[in-house]
Parts: sequence; C-alpha cells; structure tokens
Amino acid sequence: MPSESTVRRPTLTEVAALAGVSLKTASRALNREPNVAPSTGRRVQDAADSLGYRLNGIARELRRGATSALVGLVSGDLANPFYSAVASGIERELRQHGLLLITANNDEDAELERSLVDAFLERRVRALLVIPSGDDHEYLAIEGNRGVPFVFLDRPPDGLAADAVLIDNAGGARSAGEHLLAGGHRRIAMVADLARMAPQRSRIDGFVSAMTSFGNTLWEPYLRTEVHDVRHAERTVRDLLLLETPPTAIFTTNNRLTTGALRALRDVVRPPALVGFDDFDLADVLGTTVVAHDMGAIGREAARLAYERISGHTGPARTIVISTSLIARGSGERTG
Amino acid sequence: MPSESTVRRPTLTEVAALAGVSLKTASRALNREPNVAPSTGRRVQDAADSLGYRLNGIARELRRGATSALVGLVSGDLANPFYSAVASGIERELRQHGLLLITANNDEDAELERSLVDAFLERRVRALLVIPSGDDHEYLAIEGNRGVPFVFLDRPPDGLAADAVLIDNAGGARSAGEHLLAGGHRRIAMVADLARMAPQRSRIDGFVSAMTSFGNTLWEPYLRTEVHDVRHAERTVRDLLLLETPPTAIFTTNNRLTTGALRALRDVVRPPALVGFDDFDLADVLGTTVVAHDMGAIGREAARLAYERISGHTGPARTIVISTSLIARGSGERTG
Repeated sequence: MPSESTVRRPTLTEVAALAGVSLKTASRALNREPNVAPSTGRRVQDAADSLGYRLNGIARELRRGATSALVGLVSGDLANPFYSAVASGIERELRQHGLLLITANNDEDAELERSLVDAFLERRVRALLVIPSGDDHEYLAIEGNRGVPFVFLDRPPDGLAADAVLIDNAGGARSAGEHLLAGGHRRIAMVADLARMAPQRSRIDGFVSAMTSFGNTLWEPYLRTEVHDVRHAERTVRDLLLLETPPTAIFTTNNRLTTGALRALRDVVRPPALVGFDDFDLADVLGTTVVAHDMGAIGREAARLAYERISGHTGPARTIVISTSLIARGSGERTG
Repeated sequence: MPSESTVRRPTLTEVAALAGVSLKTASRALNREPNVAPSTGRRVQDAADSLGYRLNGIARELRRGATSALVGLVSGDLANPFYSAVASGIERELRQHGLLLITANNDEDAELERSLVDAFLERRVRALLVIPSGDDHEYLAIEGNRGVPFVFLDRPPDGLAADAVLIDNAGGARSAGEHLLAGGHRRIAMVADLARMAPQRSRIDGFVSAMTSFGNTLWEPYLRTEVHDVRHAERTVRDLLLLETPPTAIFTTNNRLTTGALRALRDVVRPPALVGFDDFDLADVLGTTVVAHDMGAIGREAARLAYERISGHTGPARTIVISTSLIARGSGERTG
C-alpha cells in the first residue's frame, strides 16, 4: 500500500497543461460552461481522466443554487445511541454552515467501511467524518489525498495525520474505578468490549491505573473483555454473580454493556454497585451512576473542524479531547 | 405544481434521436466508453442535457466493480430510536442485495426534506425510502418521475402512488385503550404528539374508538395533543397529576412521550397506570407496558419493496401493514 506521501492530488494546472489549454478554459470545460468548443471540452475531459483529476462539483452546485453540499459520516450502527447522538450533534453544527449530513453504517467491518468511504467520495462529499471500525486507517490516507478532509471521532487516527475528536476515556474510567474504591469496594469486576478497539483499551487502562494506584489487586479475577453486545453482557454479569465469591461492584465500559448488566441485575435482591461508561436515556429514572460525556459536543466539535478545513484551513492535524464527569445516581453508591 | 402525469422521464431513445445517433452510440457516449468520437460524445451529451436525461450511473459503477450502489433514507432524527431501529432493518436487508444505505435527517422540516431528496437523486441513489415529515408528498411525485422508486415508511403517501410500509397505529392504540378499560380505568389520559402527523391521528382515533365502543367519556378532559418532546411530555404528565381529579391511567402515543411520562412518574408514590406506544430499550427493566411492533421488520419490508422495484417490478403501488402487540410488564396493570 503506498504511503501518504507517494499519492498526490493532481491539480487543474496539470490538467490544463496536458490538454494544451489555459487554466480558465480547463475550468470552464470541466464545469460544462457554455462557449467551450466540443473538441476542447473532450480533450480537457480526457486529460482530467488520465490524471485522475476530481472535479469539485460542489462549487458548481452552489453556483446554480442547489442546496446539496454534503458531508459524510461513516460510523457504527446508528441503532446504538452513542453514534446517533454524535450524528445529531454533527448535523446541528453543519446546518449552520448550509451543509447537509449523510451517514452510513460500517457495521464495524473495515472492508465495508472502505466501500462506504469510496461511495461518499464518488458522490463528492466536502468532508468525511469517520468513527472507524478498526485501528488501521492507512487506506484513508490514500483517500484523504484526493483532497477531501477527514475528521476522526472517538478513535485516534493511526497511519495518517488527521483532525480528531476523542473522549477522555482513560480519565473517565479512572474516575469510575476511584469512585467504587472510595465506596469501599475491592472486588470490582470490569466488563469490557473488544480490546482491539482503542477507546476500550484506554478505558481498561484507566480503570487498571486506578486499582494499581490504590494498591488493590482483588479486581483481577473479575476482568471480562471481548463482551460485545447486550445479551453477552447480561450473561457475563449473571455468571459473575454466580461465582463462589462474587464481585461487590461492576464497571461496564459502554452503554450496551450497561444495558446488559441492568437486565442481569433486575431481579437480584442485593445487587452489586454498578457504574457504566456513557450516559443513556432513562439512566435518571433507573438511578444508574454513569461516566457521562457530551456526545453532542463530540459531533459539534468534529463538524467544526471539518468546516474549518472545507473553508480552507491548512494547519497541522488537531486533536480535541472531550472531558467526562461521573454522575452519581444511586447504583454506584451501593455498598458491598 | 404539475401533476404526476405531466412530468415524464425522457428515454435514451429520445436522446439518441435528438443527437442523430444510434441507441447503442448514445449509450456508449453517455457511459464514456472508448471508441466514441469526441464530437459525437458532445452531441449526445448536449441532447441528454437539453432533455433532462439522467444517466443511470449505477450500472456503469457496477460494471467497473465499484460497490457503491446506494439507497437513500430520509427520516427524522436518528437520535430517536424508532428511526434508528427502522434504518438498521433497512440496512440489513439491502446488504443482502449488495446495496448500501445512506441516511439523512429531515428534522421534520418539509423544505429540508425536499433538499435532501434532491441531493440524493443528484447522487444517483437507486431508490429512496422516506419517513416523510409532513402529509403533502406531491413534490415527491415529481421527483419520483425521474425514474427512482420511492417507498414510504410509517406514513402513507398522499398525492402520489408509491409503495408503503405502515404500522397498525389505530389497532395498536385501540388495544392500549381496551387494556386500560379492562383494568378498571375510566379517567384515562392520552398524551399525544403533533396531530398533523398521520400516525398520531390514527393512534388518537384508535384510542377514541376503544373509549366510544365501551361507552366511556371520562377520558375527554385528559386529552393532550401537540406534545412533541420528552420535556414537554414530562411537564404535561406532571400537570395532569396536579389536577383536582387526576387521571388514574395514561396512554402515551410514542416512545419520546413515554420517556417523559416515566420521568414525571419517577418519584410519585402511587403512580397512575401507564401504557406507551412503541417498545424501547430497558422497558423490560423498568416494567413498562407497551404497544410493541417490529421496527426492524418495517425497515426490512420497505427495503424488500425497494429492491423489487430496482429489479424491475412495475406493478401497482403496494401497502404493507405491520401488526402490533401489547406487552404487559406491570405499569399498565396498576389499578386506579
């Protein structure tokens, strides 16, 4: 796979030179403006095709008054409220700049993600926001060089320089661990998602660092990772409670796992303490203590970075980190 | 605004005739295949432009092996789990046919919806699924005639003939009313969303028909419509409970309103019975009785109808109605 530096976006100047016409004529031909001889138009088009030049169709669209300036978002399933809240924040921000959001679900599959990125670029999105499925983003470096700015959300870019908006995953998980330790818990289970996902690794690290700083090792038998959906989380928590010495507290590392834990604990007479990463609808009604972060803000910040790039900003890649806060609602304050 | 019958999609035959070339040459020119003289190509393109002929770019894309055959969905905010569950069902079905879904949020604004439909058509989606914001869909009739099939979800098409997948809104609301009547309730409040939305009108009708059949009129002082978000629903339910003679039961006509009601009832010592339209995450944990329907099935059926049209099916417009079922979990079985 070629590295970022070996792929370069052809310029209109090169197209004009190859076609043997002026820059202005090349531009008019590609924009299908009148007063360009058909043969000239064809020569310019052939030159553009052979160089792989991609017309900026948006300017043309905006000129003729169409409102179809799009920004693409590739993320996981929007049925997950984390993704949909982020998308909603992006949308609100983009709309202020007259931009529309189109989204597609990568189903946490890197191949599919690549197809979607390609489909969006083919359809001339002005920027691409990605909550990537995996940790290898080198292929995006190649796409990115077609001149479309990329912004990463929730997961840092690896293998390319791009703007990113991240959550303070380690800090948030550390505060969850410290909160449970302060409540007197030592046998603390952590139920985590796929460790191949960077945010999950950071949350695991944060929790472990809280335990280590405190000198507690009693959590170790209760670590469960690779728990990827609600049902699996429910089963995992049930199994934890059936242990001879069950944990007195549980930390779940995302909203889906918290949902599973709540199902498992529904009919338990003396449930363990529970803290979940990610706030969720009805957590207030259920009295669930969470590590919250502003999902709308993640989207808004990402949209803002994208808009700046669209507007011509060319500085180095930036990373914005969104802070977390622990909201005590009862479940995390139960004593062991 | 022209009616459906006055707008006709130009054919490739007409393009070829106007350009004075064979059908085959016209096709090759528009697909930018080799061995077409530049001047011929330009003539064909001019003819296509003047007729408003829209190239089916997907076939060309599929020929060159790209995986970018897209279907568009325009719906309300995906932060609403109803929309995101439907989108998830659509996606799963489309993927089996090698089609990708892109979505955009109309923000329940008819103007924005129109821009999005246009943006999607510009980007050559193969079909458009719409959960429309309003009840006037005549403008879609015009768009639809560009040859892109439309499927309506959740709301029936008005002003054009198109496939639709609907929920049995009236039947579901009737069952909620009957359930509460059977539980001994007479002073039953209905908290409903905007009455301009057809599904809401059907739910109101269904509930009223249950009351009328039973000969109960005591619900009438407790009817609240135009309640459009969670906070408004919370406030509305609080106000209902402050009445001199409060209702003994509440029926909320969608998931957002149910969430608001649950917040309002959180700290109430003897809460009224509650039945909500739409199932939701954690309703089982909260013990909330709901009128459920298979949101994934709505999406799957809509995607299936779209795929059949894409594959050439040309029969009359079809309507599929998804049934509902009442799931008793405790909140709807409290006695007054």
